[in-house]
Amino acid sequence: LRKWYTEVQEAPEVGAKKRVVTLTTDFGTDNWFAGSMKGVICGINPGTEVIDISHDIPKHDVRKAAFILLNAYSYFPEGTVHVAVVDPGVGSERLSIAAASGNHCFVGPDNGVFSFVLGRDEGVRVVSLENRRYMLKDVSGTFHGRDVFAPVAAHLTLGVDLSELGPPLESWVRLEASRPRHLGDRELVGHIIYIDHFGNCISDVSRKDLGELSGGEVPKRVNIRIRDGVVRRISSTYADGSAGELLCLFGSSGYLEFAVNRGNANETFKLSEGGEFILKIL
Amino acid sequence: LRKWYTEVQEAPEVGAKKRVVTLTTDFGTDNWFAGSMKGVICGINPGTEVIDISHDIPKHDVRKAAFILLNAYSYFPEGTVHVAVVDPGVGSERLSIAAASGNHCFVGPDNGVFSFVLGRDEGVRVVSLENRRYMLKDVSGTFHGRDVFAPVAAHLTLGVDLSELGPPLESWVRLEASRPRHLGDRELVGHIIYIDHFGNCISDVSRKDLGELSGGEVPKRVNIRIRDGVVRRISSTYADGSAGELLCLFGSSGYLEFAVNRGNANETFKLSEGGEFILKIL
Amino acid sequence: LRKWYTEVQEAPEVGAKKRVVTLTTDFGTDNWFAGSMKGVICGINPGTEVIDISHDIPKHDVRKAAFILLNAYSYFPEGTVHVAVVDPGVGSERLSIAAASGNHCFVGPDNGVFSFVLGRDEGVRVVSLENRRYMLKDVSGTFHGRDVFAPVAAHLTLGVDLSELGPPLESWVRLEASRPRHLGDRELVGHIIYIDHFGNCISDVSRKDLGELSGGEVPKRVNIRIRDGVVRRISSTYADGSAGELLCLFGSSGYLEFAVNRGNANETFKLSEGGEFILKIL
Repeated sequence: LRKWYTEVQEAPEVGAKKRVVTLTTDFGTDNWFAGSMKGVICGINPGTEVIDISHDIPKHDVRKAAFILLNAYSYFPEGTVHVAVVDPGVGSERLSIAAASGNHCFVGPDNGVFSFVLGRDEGVRVVSLENRRYMLKDVSGTFHGRDVFAPVAAHLTLGVDLSELGPPLESWVRLEASRPRHLGDRELVGHIIYIDHFGNCISDVSRKDLGELSGGEVPKRVNIRIRDGVVRRISSTYADGSAGELLCLFGSSGYLEFAVNRGNANETFKLSEGGEFILKIL
Repeated sequence: LRKWYTEVQEAPEVGAKKRVVTLTTDFGTDNWFAGSMKGVICGINPGTEVIDISHDIPKHDVRKAAFILLNAYSYFPEGTVHVAVVDPGVGSERLSIAAASGNHCFVGPDNGVFSFVLGRDEGVRVVSLENRRYMLKDVSGTFHGRDVFAPVAAHLTLGVDLSELGPPLESWVRLEASRPRHLGDRELVGHIIYIDHFGNCISDVSRKDLGELSGGEVPKRVNIRIRDGVVRRISSTYADGSAGELLCLFGSSGYLEFAVNRGNANETFKLSEGGEFILKIL
Repeated sequence: LRKWYTEVQEAPEVGAKKRVVTLTTDFGTDNWFAGSMKGVICGINPGTEVIDISHDIPKHDVRKAAFILLNAYSYFPEGTVHVAVVDPGVGSERLSIAAASGNHCFVGPDNGVFSFVLGRDEGVRVVSLENRRYMLKDVSGTFHGRDVFAPVAAHLTLGVDLSELGPPLESWVRLEASRPRHLGDRELVGHIIYIDHFGNCISDVSRKDLGELSGGEVPKRVNIRIRDGVVRRISSTYADGSAGELLCLFGSSGYLEFAVNRGNANETFKLSEGGEFILKIL
């Protein structure tokens, strides 16, 4: 978790006076939804800094929100409270939850949006949000972001303990992560799981996956076939490629991604989310 | 006004050290407009927190900005200064104003953008911005957001009184709010006034309007006709509906809205802003 | 540089406790890129306020980012650190730089993105970012915004001196600014360099350029021809024009711009970036 700290920087203390709340939603930005959540938070704890991760998650795309949160959360200081509101089931029987894991807190619907940030940790604590004392007085049936999650997050930054918010949960909704499939000793099928703003196509093959396949180091020679494209080496940066060449490299998320130097891999090679590729160690 | 506070939370004091300025504009986010306003504000009062409500109001749509501000402002702590810059008449004879109402302040053009937040309060004070001391040295004819409204807002957070900004105004521009029309004792015509990011269609029928029509409680049985859709009950949440069913419920703004559970009422039923519907109590 | 301060306001001290970091990128807002930069910054210096100028610069458009930064930066308090990440060459041989100029700091790739903010000042200091102590422990080959520029900016707000970041540079990449071309004593060819959100078309003709041509004051009578439009005077505000009339005025950036009162000059007159016009003093 502390991987990102610079050499100079000590890890910030949990409970330091200024606390950060992040927001990840599918609300868009042409309305009052995110703004009213921020108003509630800074009304309850004026010492909080609210930082947008994104309000432009595709509507109701819980899996995408979960992946984006995974890529962002660990860069925030410990003690940060991450609120995620991609919530197609608002008003239904789905639970509302708060969780603590690795010195980060998470608040939102129990629909899998925290699958990838909670999934890997033994010391995870999750509670069901039931104590009305920490919600707005009137809780609407349609906007829990403002009426439940924002005030709960603000109270967490004030030092309210998870146990005050409601009873502990033994289980919660998890989405299954996409995983590469082994075809043979030195061959696997990977999947494109996210296409970024620049058309880079991020796969589900981690550095560890490739290391296991090759028996250690990143392999020198590979054969990767994806639609009409073939890639024969793992590059280090986008700049390794000549114009229009399809590249494969480990991106900033730690997963193998397809890219074109100063170009758009997605458009040029017509890759799509969910698409498969075959990777062979030579 | 204090309706939103949680049980635990006391209302924040006006004049508490950290003050919030909100921004609501039609500037978009691909330019320097909102950023330079924020620079001016935090240059004048580094203790201010600037929070975006929206920069994606449709260009020159003063009425929409007024509605969005109405839905957001009361969730911010008292003492907040709300700046709205949807200003097709910048540089014309239109006045610039600041107003105080219910422990919130408002700064912007006198073009109706504060119609719905100022309209309901007896103790409203409004002044015409004329004192150049609280504006930037050079006031352009084309960007009052940066040169007039941002510095005035920042000075308000520093404790400058409204009366120092300019002379009081007895009247200011108000837009007429859309209102339902009574057809008979137990029947009315309502209007769609806002279609939100998820396709939910918010009407001008408030909980009070419906209570008056039905003689108190939310009625059990209704008949609502809108284009090809018919609704026969008032739901509590989006989750009340079966797949593709048109629902009618009181949304988080307190107005009756049309929705489809996990769907898009606007697209499915081709509703549009300004469109009418007939609601009958059975 | 201090032009914007109000009469009441003294210039803020450099090194005052609260420091501002601005972000200007082409990352878009539907992902974790800007959010993770903010997390890194507030993790290293929780006392920093991070303000977005824009994340919607057209992809890889370094010149546009440079122009937007030029229009925004001087409105921020002295001591602000401006980070710009429009970086098509990430991972290539291009240098990473930090610069100080006029009591503002700048951090980003050495690709010309600071051309217009550094170009005018004799006292500019620029260093090449080489000291790994001020970067994240693992520097990816694809996301220097998060791994290099964000942590360097945060350390600058903590008082780290430029000289600690790396060796000084004598030269750095500069884009050539668009400039009007003289046709004769009282005639020039100008160029549209930026079309704003409202369709106003900003040119490369400054107030000074026009003053030099006319021998002092803004001229009373001119003849400006641009595509099918003709303009015969310099207006003061958008409100000077009748409906649909093409106007020419000095906008808030200090450059001559084409506009239509409550309309869209770009759409109505089909102007485009790079397009020329002829301006004659009568």
